[in-house]
Amino acid sequence: MTEPRNALYAQSGGVTAVINATACGVIQECRAHPNLVKNVLAANNGIVGILKEELFDTSLEMESEIEKLRSTPGGAFGSCRFKLKAPSTTDTVARRIFDVFKAHDVGYFFYNGGGDSQDTTNKISTLSKEFSYPLHCIGIPKTVDNDLANTDTCPGFGSVAKYVAVSVQEAGLDVRSMSETSTKVFILEVMGRHAGWIAASGGLAGNAESEPPHIILFPEIAFHEEKFLSKVEESVARYRHCVVVASEGVRDDEGRFLSDSGKTDSFGHKQLGGVAQDLAQLVTQKLQYKVHFAIADYLQRSARHIASQTDVDQAYAVGKTAVVSALSGNTEQMVTIERLQDEPYRWRVGTTPIGNVANVERKLPRSYITEDGFSITANARRYLEPLIQGEAYPQYVSGRPDYVRLKNKLVSRKLPEFELD
Amino acid sequence: MTEPRNALYAQSGGVTAVINATACGVIQECRAHPNLVKNVLAANNGIVGILKEELFDTSLEMESEIEKLRSTPGGAFGSCRFKLKAPSTTDTVARRIFDVFKAHDVGYFFYNGGGDSQDTTNKISTLSKEFSYPLHCIGIPKTVDNDLANTDTCPGFGSVAKYVAVSVQEAGLDVRSMSETSTKVFILEVMGRHAGWIAASGGLAGNAESEPPHIILFPEIAFHEEKFLSKVEESVARYRHCVVVASEGVRDDEGRFLSDSGKTDSFGHKQLGGVAQDLAQLVTQKLQYKVHFAIADYLQRSARHIASQTDVDQAYAVGKTAVVSALSGNTEQMVTIERLQDEPYRWRVGTTPIGNVANVERKLPRSYITEDGFSITANARRYLEPLIQGEAYPQYVSGRPDYVRLKNKLVSRKLPEFELD
Repeated sequence: MTEPRNALYAQSGGVTAVINATACGVIQECRAHPNLVKNVLAANNGIVGILKEELFDTSLEMESEIEKLRSTPGGAFGSCRFKLKAPSTTDTVARRIFDVFKAHDVGYFFYNGGGDSQDTTNKISTLSKEFSYPLHCIGIPKTVDNDLANTDTCPGFGSVAKYVAVSVQEAGLDVRSMSETSTKVFILEVMGRHAGWIAASGGLAGNAESEPPHIILFPEIAFHEEKFLSKVEESVARYRHCVVVASEGVRDDEGRFLSDSGKTDSFGHKQLGGVAQDLAQLVTQKLQYKVHFAIADYLQRSARHIASQTDVDQAYAVGKTAVVSALSGNTEQMVTIERLQDEPYRWRVGTTPIGNVANVERKLPRSYITEDGFSITANARRYLEPLIQGEAYPQYVSGRPDYVRLKNKLVSRKLPEFELD
Repeated sequence: MTEPRNALYAQSGGVTAVINATACGVIQECRAHPNLVKNVLAANNGIVGILKEELFDTSLEMESEIEKLRSTPGGAFGSCRFKLKAPSTTDTVARRIFDVFKAHDVGYFFYNGGGDSQDTTNKISTLSKEFSYPLHCIGIPKTVDNDLANTDTCPGFGSVAKYVAVSVQEAGLDVRSMSETSTKVFILEVMGRHAGWIAASGGLAGNAESEPPHIILFPEIAFHEEKFLSKVEESVARYRHCVVVASEGVRDDEGRFLSDSGKTDSFGHKQLGGVAQDLAQLVTQKLQYKVHFAIADYLQRSARHIASQTDVDQAYAVGKTAVVSALSGNTEQMVTIERLQDEPYRWRVGTTPIGNVANVERKLPRSYITEDGFSITANARRYLEPLIQGEAYPQYVSGRPDYVRLKNKLVSRKLPEFELD
């Protein structure tokens, strides 16, 4: 019989409406195995909190508070964007991570994030072998971009998809009402830097060609000004209005983002935003239609109030399964969602070697986009529809969702301070 | 015993998440009085549909479809922005309106709109006397801007208020999670051209000073760049992040809109949009924080999925009461909401002479804004909180709201065509 050790859970990258449901799954499953897990520590702001030795003691959180994580958006422990260098046992950052693991007897490490974060999980797995440090290191998927390889979907995406589909449906009814004497074109800018999954989900808003969205602009399809404008004109002529869903990552045929602010984030990715305004200006100038535009930005990925029940269930399940897998002795894995059947939708949780996931980006298949490049196909619909099923309403108090704020008390430091660049 | 006559209902101005709940109230109440009301005609696109003699026959819509209007956003019959000239019996537009009323035996006219639209209701009331045409002409309030005089609130506002409060709360949790290594400032641009009611509702997102929003920018308070930037800096220093709610109508101390596109709508109002981007650029340049921004635009006023139950109830009630009032012989009135008590909130429906409402704009009282101009006071909270109470979820089918699309069959024309400029 082995001695129980601590589990360490951390959130990384852009947060979602359901990443805390995963945290809930991890913590509840760990608590169910006191013979194997002493306590769940949670890093303050992902890997950065590990380096700073800022670890929250989740044992101080009541069961009822942990349960509320299931319906609270954002990252309850804080997240980060931080890229780990190539694994090397002489690297000071790498050594620090394992010093902290050792000082706090971390035997299970769960890193909850997207592609860049799973690269971190992979490197930590590798380092644990090189340091000969006994660690069960499991990646847990999370990304609204839905671009992780080897999983049918990524927790966080289904809820954004539902938010975007519902928003397009609703704003579509609005602009249709206004189109006789006022606004004829409405543009919604959505996330998805390199992959058009979120933009595609806007296509679920309507069932007929006449229903919004009339145009989807995917990052996978090069933007042609004339084709776009003529499609807008055609839609206004036929339906008196035109609803456009534009990915923030729309680019021209030379691969340049339509709206390139020139700034980059800490992973070196271009920081985008504002394509909707550019498109609005284009339509106003060239076609003289009155245009309105919205930029959903963080609203789309934090909208827990309109989360998909399917997504919440999957987010919770990957957390639970990560623990089950680690406690069974596994390491170097990422938990996955496997689709068993489209309709009625059936899924289960699986695992994949972490090396198969890190830094691989899954684009929207061309077969999900119609030939003209402006809509989604029946294939796409078959894939996307199950992911937005079910409403997972949070509790409300005084008209607002009753989201939990944890105590987040740090455990005592055991190591000297560490200088982060 | 008088012969039953037709009722004519029309929607005007920017539509809302609950204007159809008002339509539902009007139609259901008319149907309950077949001895007084033959049929409810609904104008296609407001007053424009009256001029074009495009009138929908609502008797062809099933009771179950009419009931679904209660939970369907947008304007089910279409809306318009159209300003009527000063009432004159020689004006061709004025004559046409009454030709259409006469041809279709319209005895009850219900115009559902905001300040500009109630000006139209007022003019039509005046014209009916000058033409000696027997008409019961009742205005029904509707505006997300909440700026109508002589009513405690305006149907449509409470649901936007709830949307904005919930969105700020959710996005606030998101940016807080990201603030350690990434986004520190989040800006949400909301509607409210001249009055800060919607911006103020963002203040309901949090209860403590540390909770979002940390800054609200009202159109009523002149924008000072330095004060704003120092408040952003202070918030980031104290809470590591800063959430800003910015009204589209933010202006400088000379009354110039911060973001003036130079365009105007058909009422001559400036068409705004993009203040969030300007503010984001300002913060990035001056303070070097990473900033994200969202522009809610039509999403906020069409978000029936997160409508306030209070708002839906009031929208329905003003529709019903308009009919009750007209059938009792009244005219030249607008229906109002009267507040009887703040907590527990109690309200009833009343009426006011239409002349008291037309073209009067109600601004946010200075006592609702804190001395520094960046937050709401306890007074504001007492006023606003009741308006976002209750969740009025629509029915969902396949993961999306089951919004109704009416048949909207036109009644036969009885008049020659009319040339609209």
